[in-house]
Amino acid sequence: MTEPVTANEADAEAADALAASTSEASLRRSEERSRAIEDQIAKDPSVFRMLTGDRPTGHLHIGHYFGSILNRVRLQDAGVETLVLIADYQVITDRDGTGPIRERVHSLVTDYLSVGIDPARTTIFTHSAIPALNQLMLPFLSLVSDSELYRNPTVKAEHDATGGRPMSGLLLTYPVHQAADILFCKANLVPVGKDQLPHLEQTRVVARRFDERYGRVDPHEPVFPQAEALLSSGSLILGMDGTKMSKSKGNTIELRMTADETAKVIKRAVTDSDRFITFDPVNRPEVSNLLTLAGLCADRDPAEIAAEIGDGGGGGLKKYLTEALNEKLAPVRARRLELEADPGHIEAVLREGNQRANAIADATLAEVREAMGMVY
Amino acid sequence: MTEPVTANEADAEAADALAASTSEASLRRSEERSRAIEDQIAKDPSVFRMLTGDRPTGHLHIGHYFGSILNRVRLQDAGVETLVLIADYQVITDRDGTGPIRERVHSLVTDYLSVGIDPARTTIFTHSAIPALNQLMLPFLSLVSDSELYRNPTVKAEHDATGGRPMSGLLLTYPVHQAADILFCKANLVPVGKDQLPHLEQTRVVARRFDERYGRVDPHEPVFPQAEALLSSGSLILGMDGTKMSKSKGNTIELRMTADETAKVIKRAVTDSDRFITFDPVNRPEVSNLLTLAGLCADRDPAEIAAEIGDGGGGGLKKYLTEALNEKLAPVRARRLELEADPGHIEAVLREGNQRANAIADATLAEVREAMGMVY
Repeated sequence: MTEPVTANEADAEAADALAASTSEASLRRSEERSRAIEDQIAKDPSVFRMLTGDRPTGHLHIGHYFGSILNRVRLQDAGVETLVLIADYQVITDRDGTGPIRERVHSLVTDYLSVGIDPARTTIFTHSAIPALNQLMLPFLSLVSDSELYRNPTVKAEHDATGGRPMSGLLLTYPVHQAADILFCKANLVPVGKDQLPHLEQTRVVARRFDERYGRVDPHEPVFPQAEALLSSGSLILGMDGTKMSKSKGNTIELRMTADETAKVIKRAVTDSDRFITFDPVNRPEVSNLLTLAGLCADRDPAEIAAEIGDGGGGGLKKYLTEALNEKLAPVRARRLELEADPGHIEAVLREGNQRANAIADATLAEVREAMGMVY
Repeated sequence: MTEPVTANEADAEAADALAASTSEASLRRSEERSRAIEDQIAKDPSVFRMLTGDRPTGHLHIGHYFGSILNRVRLQDAGVETLVLIADYQVITDRDGTGPIRERVHSLVTDYLSVGIDPARTTIFTHSAIPALNQLMLPFLSLVSDSELYRNPTVKAEHDATGGRPMSGLLLTYPVHQAADILFCKANLVPVGKDQLPHLEQTRVVARRFDERYGRVDPHEPVFPQAEALLSSGSLILGMDGTKMSKSKGNTIELRMTADETAKVIKRAVTDSDRFITFDPVNRPEVSNLLTLAGLCADRDPAEIAAEIGDGGGGGLKKYLTEALNEKLAPVRARRLELEADPGHIEAVLREGNQRANAIADATLAEVREAMGMVY
C-alpha cells in the first residue's frame, strides 16, 4: 500500500482538480485530448472501454439522437467496446415515484436497437440489476467528503432545477454513484458534454484515492484506471420553438413518432418574420436550428439548403425538414416497429446485458475487497 | 400504491419523529414497550427477528460482554431468531484505511462463538459480502433529505469525535446504511442503548416512506415492518480507571486476554484513598465500578461483596475481582483457545452466515424491485 493521504489534503487536491477541470485552458486540453483519442480509436480501438448511458425518464428524441446516440453507434462500429447504462435509480434522485419505469426502460432499449446499438457487441444494462456495482458506493463514499459533494456543479444545477425541493440523499451522492458506474467496468473512456467534465473529474479523484488509501491487488497497477473524457462530437439541436427540448413543452420529436406526427410537430415550429430563408445562427436562431437539423438529416451544408429554399419561406423550410427527417428516421422507425412486435427480444437483450454487467461487477468487487483486505 | 407524500411533508414528519424519539416521555414509552416485548419473548419468541452487530475496529472486551453480548446470547437462547452483522464498511466512515480488518473480523467471530453465539441458530455475516443489502442504500437514499442526515444525533456525535476531520460521504449516509441493515432482513427488533433511539427512528421513517412512495407487493402489508427498539438490559461497565473503556487508554480487559494479563490490568485499576470498601456509585465511582463488575461475575449483590471485603481495601477488592472475573471468563477463554486452533471453522461460519444473509437480501431486493416496478 502507498502512503495514505489525509482527508484534508485529499479534499484540497480534489477541489483544485475540480476547479481546474472547468477552466478554459483545461477545456482546450480536453478538446485536444479528445482529438488524440479519436486518432487512437482509428488506429486501435481495442485499448478502449466506453461507458455511457441514459436516465429512463422518457422516450429518446432527435436531440438525443443527433446529440449523442449516433456518436455512440459510430464508436461501437469503430470497434470500441461499449457499455450502455440505463440509470433507473437516478430517476428517483429528484422525484417521488418511479413512474411507468418498465415501459420507459423497454422503450429506451427499443430505441437503442432501432438506431443501431448492437447487443451482441454492446452491453445494455440497468442499475437496479447489478448489486455489486451498487455496493461500490460504500467504499467510494468513504473517499469523498460532504463538502465535495455539495461543490459538484451538476448536483447544484440539478438541485436548483427541482425548485426548492429538499435535496435527497440520492441526489447528493449522485457523483459517487456515477463513479461506481464508470469504475465497476474500469471504463477508460466516457463521452461527455463540456458541462460534465467536473463530474468525470470526481470519478478520477475517487479512482486515485482508492489507490492511495486502500492499495492494489497487482502491485504494478492501480485497481481503477483514470477514465478520460471524449468530448461529444454530436450536435446540439434545440426544440421546434428554439428553446431547449423538453417533452413537457411539446417541442420535441421522438424517435418513436410516426411520419405524420413528425410533420405535425414541425408544422408548429417557430420561425421568424423574414420570409427569405438564410442560415444565420446568431440573428435567426429558430430558423437556423431547423436548417441545422435538416442538414444533419440530408448530410448537407445548412447554408446550401437555405440558399435552395430562399423565398420558399418558413413553409418551404418545414416541408424540406419534414421530408428529410422522416426519410432519415424511416429505417429507424421500421426497425422500431419490428422490435415492438417482439417484447420477448427486448427482455432477452436486457437479461443478457445484465448478466454480462454482473459478471464484470462481481469480478471488480472481488478485486476491491481484496485490495481492502476484506476477504475473510 | 398509496398517495405519495411530498418530500417537504415527509421531511417535517421525520423531524418531528426524531425530536419525539429523544424526549423523556418517549424514552419512558420505549422502556415500557421493551418490557412488554420481553414478556412477548417469554411467551412466543417466534414472532421476532432481531438484528444486532458490531464495527470490527478491535477485540471484544468486558464492556461489550456485560453491556450487550450476554444479552444477545440470552435472547438467542430464548428462541429469538438473531442476525449479527459485522459492519466492516463502517470501519472506514471516519478513518483512512481498513487496518488489520481480516484479523479483527476473525477475532470478533471467535469472540461471538466463545461467549455462546450459536452459528447454527444465529446468522453471523459481514456487510462487504452482501451486495443486495448494500444496493438497498440506493432506493433508501432517495427517501431521506440531506438535512435529515445532518440532523441525526449519531452522525453529529461521531463526526465531532473525529476532531475536525472532513465528514465523509459514508459517515453522512450512515443512518441510511443502518436502515438497510435492519430492513434487508425485515428485523422487527433491534437491541439499542438510549442514545441510539433516534437512529432506529430513521429506519422506521425509511420503512414508512418506502411504503408511501413506492408501494407494496402484497396489497395488505408493507414491504418493511416497523422495527422496534429493545432497550438494552445490559450493564454499563467503565474502564479500570473509572473512565469510558478504550483500548488506547489501556483500561480495558479483552475477552481474549489470559488470566495473568487480566490480573495485571486489574492491579493497575484506580480506587480511592478510603481503605474501607463500600458500594457507593455516586461518591466512589471507581471502587463501585469494580464492585459492580465483581457482582456481575459472581452473580452477587455488589454491596454484599463490599461488606465482605470491608477493610481488605483496594488490594482485597482487586484480588476478589481478579478471581471472580477470571473464573467467569475461564470457560469463554477455553472455548476461545479451541476455536483459535481451528481458523477453518471461523471461515466456514462466516461463509455459511454470509450465504444465509445473501439469500435473505436477494429475496428482499427482489421484493423491493417489484414494489418499485423495476422488473424488466
